[in-house]
Amino acid sequence: MVVRVAVAGASGYAGGELLRLLLAHPQVEIGALTAGGNVGSTLGEHHPNLTELSDRTLRETDAEVLAGHDVVFLALPHGHSDVLADQLHDTLVIDCGADHRLEDPAAWQRWYGGEHPGSWPYGLPELPWARERITKADRIAVPGCFPTVTTLALLPALLDGLVEPDLVVVAATGTSGAGRALKPHLLSAEVMGSASVYGVGGAHRHTPEMIQNLGAAAGEAVRVSFTPMLAPMSRGILATCNARLREGVDPARVRQSYTRTYEAEPFVRVLPEGQWPQTSATLGANTVHLQVAVDDDAGSLVAVGAEDNLTKGTAGGAVQCMNLALGLPETAGLSTAGMAP
Amino acid sequence: MVVRVAVAGASGYAGGELLRLLLAHPQVEIGALTAGGNVGSTLGEHHPNLTELSDRTLRETDAEVLAGHDVVFLALPHGHSDVLADQLHDTLVIDCGADHRLEDPAAWQRWYGGEHPGSWPYGLPELPWARERITKADRIAVPGCFPTVTTLALLPALLDGLVEPDLVVVAATGTSGAGRALKPHLLSAEVMGSASVYGVGGAHRHTPEMIQNLGAAAGEAVRVSFTPMLAPMSRGILATCNARLREGVDPARVRQSYTRTYEAEPFVRVLPEGQWPQTSATLGANTVHLQVAVDDDAGSLVAVGAEDNLTKGTAGGAVQCMNLALGLPETAGLSTAGMAP
Amino acid sequence: MVVRVAVAGASGYAGGELLRLLLAHPQVEIGALTAGGNVGSTLGEHHPNLTELSDRTLRETDAEVLAGHDVVFLALPHGHSDVLADQLHDTLVIDCGADHRLEDPAAWQRWYGGEHPGSWPYGLPELPWARERITKADRIAVPGCFPTVTTLALLPALLDGLVEPDLVVVAATGTSGAGRALKPHLLSAEVMGSASVYGVGGAHRHTPEMIQNLGAAAGEAVRVSFTPMLAPMSRGILATCNARLREGVDPARVRQSYTRTYEAEPFVRVLPEGQWPQTSATLGANTVHLQVAVDDDAGSLVAVGAEDNLTKGTAGGAVQCMNLALGLPETAGLSTAGMAP
Amino acid sequence: MVVRVAVAGASGYAGGELLRLLLAHPQVEIGALTAGGNVGSTLGEHHPNLTELSDRTLRETDAEVLAGHDVVFLALPHGHSDVLADQLHDTLVIDCGADHRLEDPAAWQRWYGGEHPGSWPYGLPELPWARERITKADRIAVPGCFPTVTTLALLPALLDGLVEPDLVVVAATGTSGAGRALKPHLLSAEVMGSASVYGVGGAHRHTPEMIQNLGAAAGEAVRVSFTPMLAPMSRGILATCNARLREGVDPARVRQSYTRTYEAEPFVRVLPEGQWPQTSATLGANTVHLQVAVDDDAGSLVAVGAEDNLTKGTAGGAVQCMNLALGLPETAGLSTAGMAP
Repeated sequence: MVVRVAVAGASGYAGGELLRLLLAHPQVEIGALTAGGNVGSTLGEHHPNLTELSDRTLRETDAEVLAGHDVVFLALPHGHSDVLADQLHDTLVIDCGADHRLEDPAAWQRWYGGEHPGSWPYGLPELPWARERITKADRIAVPGCFPTVTTLALLPALLDGLVEPDLVVVAATGTSGAGRALKPHLLSAEVMGSASVYGVGGAHRHTPEMIQNLGAAAGEAVRVSFTPMLAPMSRGILATCNARLREGVDPARVRQSYTRTYEAEPFVRVLPEGQWPQTSATLGANTVHLQVAVDDDAGSLVAVGAEDNLTKGTAGGAVQCMNLALGLPETAGLSTAGMAP
Repeated sequence: MVVRVAVAGASGYAGGELLRLLLAHPQVEIGALTAGGNVGSTLGEHHPNLTELSDRTLRETDAEVLAGHDVVFLALPHGHSDVLADQLHDTLVIDCGADHRLEDPAAWQRWYGGEHPGSWPYGLPELPWARERITKADRIAVPGCFPTVTTLALLPALLDGLVEPDLVVVAATGTSGAGRALKPHLLSAEVMGSASVYGVGGAHRHTPEMIQNLGAAAGEAVRVSFTPMLAPMSRGILATCNARLREGVDPARVRQSYTRTYEAEPFVRVLPEGQWPQTSATLGANTVHLQVAVDDDAGSLVAVGAEDNLTKGTAGGAVQCMNLALGLPETAGLSTAGMAP
Repeated sequence: MVVRVAVAGASGYAGGELLRLLLAHPQVEIGALTAGGNVGSTLGEHHPNLTELSDRTLRETDAEVLAGHDVVFLALPHGHSDVLADQLHDTLVIDCGADHRLEDPAAWQRWYGGEHPGSWPYGLPELPWARERITKADRIAVPGCFPTVTTLALLPALLDGLVEPDLVVVAATGTSGAGRALKPHLLSAEVMGSASVYGVGGAHRHTPEMIQNLGAAAGEAVRVSFTPMLAPMSRGILATCNARLREGVDPARVRQSYTRTYEAEPFVRVLPEGQWPQTSATLGANTVHLQVAVDDDAGSLVAVGAEDNLTKGTAGGAVQCMNLALGLPETAGLSTAGMAP
Repeated sequence: MVVRVAVAGASGYAGGELLRLLLAHPQVEIGALTAGGNVGSTLGEHHPNLTELSDRTLRETDAEVLAGHDVVFLALPHGHSDVLADQLHDTLVIDCGADHRLEDPAAWQRWYGGEHPGSWPYGLPELPWARERITKADRIAVPGCFPTVTTLALLPALLDGLVEPDLVVVAATGTSGAGRALKPHLLSAEVMGSASVYGVGGAHRHTPEMIQNLGAAAGEAVRVSFTPMLAPMSRGILATCNARLREGVDPARVRQSYTRTYEAEPFVRVLPEGQWPQTSATLGANTVHLQVAVDDDAGSLVAVGAEDNLTKGTAGGAVQCMNLALGLPETAGLSTAGMAP
């Protein structure tokens, strides 16, 4: 079986990572590549790393160009997905943007504004309720990069009722997560040698997505205080998640919860005791590395997760969903070997 | 007035930063420089940046060499301070190590082991009870780098009773904080492009020092869940501090608390609303930059602080204390202008 | 066909990169992994990125352990290869170290000292005389990382007699090239934010290897002034190569020389005019990216090459040679898509 | 004596570094700050590191605003200096831009286009013929960052006739040298973890300035092949300079030439033998660190220089010139202690 795939938004970072992964996928043939402002230029001008596709010309992002593929990946700013998808019939559409992640129209209205475009099956197969839906889907909403790693870091503790539903998440991210837009604070001279915060006080749009996932896992409303940090690196998210332990929960119970939850998952690795996540171990791989500790003095559970924001956090997760939806092996074309050092 | 100063442990990072600052101090004359393993080598081999002192030879760290100075800075691993200080009479001894920071013998015993060497006046002048003690001291314990910035980030909220005493701190640090020891995880190829955690679950030795400071500010016992992260940068700490807001505390009250607490402090800057700390703005300066937000959804206060771990977090704080103890202007020789970009 | 492969020196950076590539090779089964000082530890302690092999135990580096494999890769410091290889019969031995690269015993004696261990077929298939020898070899000497990229950057110009044989090479390298040894100048706090030089004035051991390759290409003795720089990055070499243009050589002739020389090479890419190499485009890929310019004012040809020192510069080049020697497709298991950003 | 100083172009990197240095200058009072696109904003929005000046408002860059100061620094793109300077009487005008560096109208026409704005005294006091002119000047052209370090690295060899006048320069620079303009290749995700080249083949505008300086030193026409590299760091230039040694010149002669040329210079340090420049040692300092080697095999002299492009390479050099022109001590307000690590 050969799967013919188009990528909309191919000149950005998520688009580039999708193409890097798709080039290594044994059953994929890469079709149309489209862009926004870069129509008419070659892919090589934007992604000199993808030498096999260097001479491909970027086309207009419209349904006519994208039609006729088995799969269309959308790596676009939010707000473009709905109209395109409406015109793509008999096609698996996988949206890396935010448009269809939130189930609650009120949350959408508050965080993004405008009419709720409706939710699609949520592309995080490691959620107990998600994999089957993805398998049957022809529309998939890929999770945000922060929600992916934080959800996986807290999932076992919430599923098993080990912690109170008040969660504190602080996550450092590489700057590719902000995309390729030209913003002063993303200039290299600003970023190198410096760490900063942004979206503090609950202002980051990934917060409602975390609340949605983690609340579903807990079976009750959760509160999430989320602070993203910008670290001087290109890729990678390191998320530190904190929650109050419930009475009587001991470290052995916690460890058991984490190892059991993920024992069959190909892309989640609970590290051996004593070893802590580092983002370098996940770079370019579709993996999340997790570790968890109990702090007796503070009465807290601390779970830490690492991922590559562009791979498991975006493009790799998207390919994993494609595999499931097409009935291919879930791991096809996806590596668990990060590129370190 | 000319102050004659010796530095013990001059070949390490804290020692080097002390010398960089002392070279710029209008009233300091730099005397003996001592080291551990590097005795007999020149300072220029270890700190090629300090060209004025390049030809100075590093001498043995013993009381005979250090005697006869007005001030002796100790930039040594913990455990060496007590014996040296006992032999240094009529000398202001400022210890950048941990030996004399903790007041509670039980805490010392638990975190460092062995007999409690006793506490010295704590060198964080911005604590309401500290500046006067420092002014009269001939022995000063310089705070740890993490406790400096986290204490200052949470101090107003605790002094004014705005938050519950359960505190979550996640702080990213540059790798100079780990000193110059040759450890595999500090190799550049491991660190660059990667973020990692260590000392998770309440295992970092700076935790009891935070508890001591913050508990004193709160007037009640506090719990601190502290997670340090290693970021790919040489210098700088960015600390994100989270606490549950008490009923009825609104953003205006919070802001007022922070601006009032620090309005007279030369080295603490509460940033204008909308601007968030970045470590680059503090590099080489003796400043802490702070910002604070209220997260209504999560019911939290989030305070973020940035500092240079080697400057305000160690050597700059030490010089500030020296100035106070000697009756010099508190800001003598210390800059508030960070080196950015 | 399944090829059973052992890696000696598996805990270092070259060993880790070999394993990362071999995991992706469709015909390789990974057998014994050996180490020097790290015997008895698991691979996961040294390479947390290689999750599939995390539980593998590192064994002693001796011939008994390495025997019985189809291929043995040696990723060891120089001086260990000869004795091991003598005991490995009916095995393809591919040495990533320096022992068998130099053909001239006098050069060996001068640069490494001691008796010349003899030369093996030189593993740079892009040299016109090399590919066939590699195909028939059961012993292969993998080139050094600097010689790989500088040889390929200057090869067309020398083969076609476009330049004088006085060559100036300045190459910036990431610090993984120095291996995992604990040396003060490789500490992250020293490297980040700084560029430095080393081995200046013709002192780097890769110089005689460049002279050997480039002299053979030129058909006459060449002189190479080589200066390596250390740049604050983990991986990657960017080599700037300068030579005086011979009379009458114009840019079109230069361009033709480069494109023709490499038109059939799967792993060398001469970039489109106007585009210059950047190491990020080659990271993790087995590619060298080249560009060349004529400076009329200076009368010079400037050729610039980029590669990943661990991939095409070491482990990827080694796998490419294995493929050739075993009669597999030269590109099996090797990617041309670098991981950027 | 208090010197009242204005800075035009205060929101950029050169402007910020000027202000950082001027804040530390004992005789300077900072007056008007002007900008281009950022008029009306506060300095703190652009340089949060300069806390003392945070509330200053940026004004229009015109002669009326700049008039009435003792000194005006221009940190503007080229092309703006002439008109402004014409209207600033009785004021020392120090231009950090390129407008008045080149003496040869034909060179100006070729490299910048348009009419030659005329040359001003060249602000590199270490040139034997320059210091006296600067002392008497009321207009000074600050050298480019690359010409500063490469001129100083080659000056002794050319003055003393040790090398042939064919020079090869390869210099790695931090990205602050490119200024604060929003260009895709300067985005942090592009720069971090990568080295690249630009302006290859003699295309960089600093080339004619090097030719001017080095030709004057040699007393004959020189040819310079200059290749700039972009390294993943914010600040710093490391320049490797190569030239063919003349017959009979031995290492002792070379060393003598370098040490004698600079023995009285406060801001040029010839490192002890065996020690090589690293940019970190010069960060924030007004120093150039030099080392030189003879490569007997290649017949070359290799001189390497390090500087901070923003300090000695721009703003520090400018302040040094101001000191000379005003009759202040040449070193006033300028440090030789770099900020490392």
